[in-house]
Amino acid sequence: MGIEIERKFLVEDESWKSEAGEGLVCKQGYMVSESEKTVRVRIMGENGYLTIKGATKGITRSEFEYPIPVEDAEAMLGLCGGLVEKTRFLILHAGMTWELDIFAGDNEGLVMAEIELESEDQLFEIPEWAGKEVSDDIRYFNGYLSKVPFTQW
Amino acid sequence: MGIEIERKFLVEDESWKSEAGEGLVCKQGYMVSESEKTVRVRIMGENGYLTIKGATKGITRSEFEYPIPVEDAEAMLGLCGGLVEKTRFLILHAGMTWELDIFAGDNEGLVMAEIELESEDQLFEIPEWAGKEVSDDIRYFNGYLSKVPFTQW
Repeated sequence: MGIEIERKFLVEDESWKSEAGEGLVCKQGYMVSESEKTVRVRIMGENGYLTIKGATKGITRSEFEYPIPVEDAEAMLGLCGGLVEKTRFLILHAGMTWELDIFAGDNEGLVMAEIELESEDQLFEIPEWAGKEVSDDIRYFNGYLSKVPFTQW
Repeated sequence: MGIEIERKFLVEDESWKSEAGEGLVCKQGYMVSESEKTVRVRIMGENGYLTIKGATKGITRSEFEYPIPVEDAEAMLGLCGGLVEKTRFLILHAGMTWELDIFAGDNEGLVMAEIELESEDQLFEIPEWAGKEVSDDIRYFNGYLSKVPFTQW
């Protein structure tokens, strides 16, 4: 079991591109997505993952992630509702790794970056390219985006 | 990915006891339990499992099962609704392995045996101790028992 503590920011500036490596195509769906729990199926690049998360308290939630065969993940995506598609870039900035997602499909137009922290009060440098913080806004949870995608807002 | 094809029978006769080995205590809960999909967390003996099943068509459904650390399973059971508790016995009968469950807790009084088949039309010998078949009765799905337990029927 792990604990996930993360903060999320919208990205409108494109200056992050000079800091990023290659993007990985990611496709994910939810067997269940409620405020108390989510079960996520993800294919990232050539790997499959099954991830269970508990209730979000502030910016913290319990998280359990298991690698699974990508063929299993592909079949399980067929059991999920709406899919979230995005390309993920890793960016090393001021000693911290950011994950920046360019959404596609029904969430086209949304670009969001997140940083995972060791504790809720951990300090970090917010990059120039990071805009409005949306850590507490439920609409930006990927589980929510699978039900009510960005292009429908 | 696997396919699960199983038939289930109520057990009222106790003559199975002479054929059974030691029972394993089993505790399971559901992150989601719908007709189209279930996500089950199970602790059986000292092992943890995460199991995803698709829609049931007749007596067949898709199934994906992964062993997980038992501490993860224990924590995840806290994210589930009602728990199903039972003791499972394996019985070798006429060359086939039966799983016989004596339910406890909110499902006390229910005893059910199931057999997993290779195909829907596979022939097998129904033991003397097996009573009414309930393969098609949704009330006897463990996911349903977690919501509407036997003692409340």
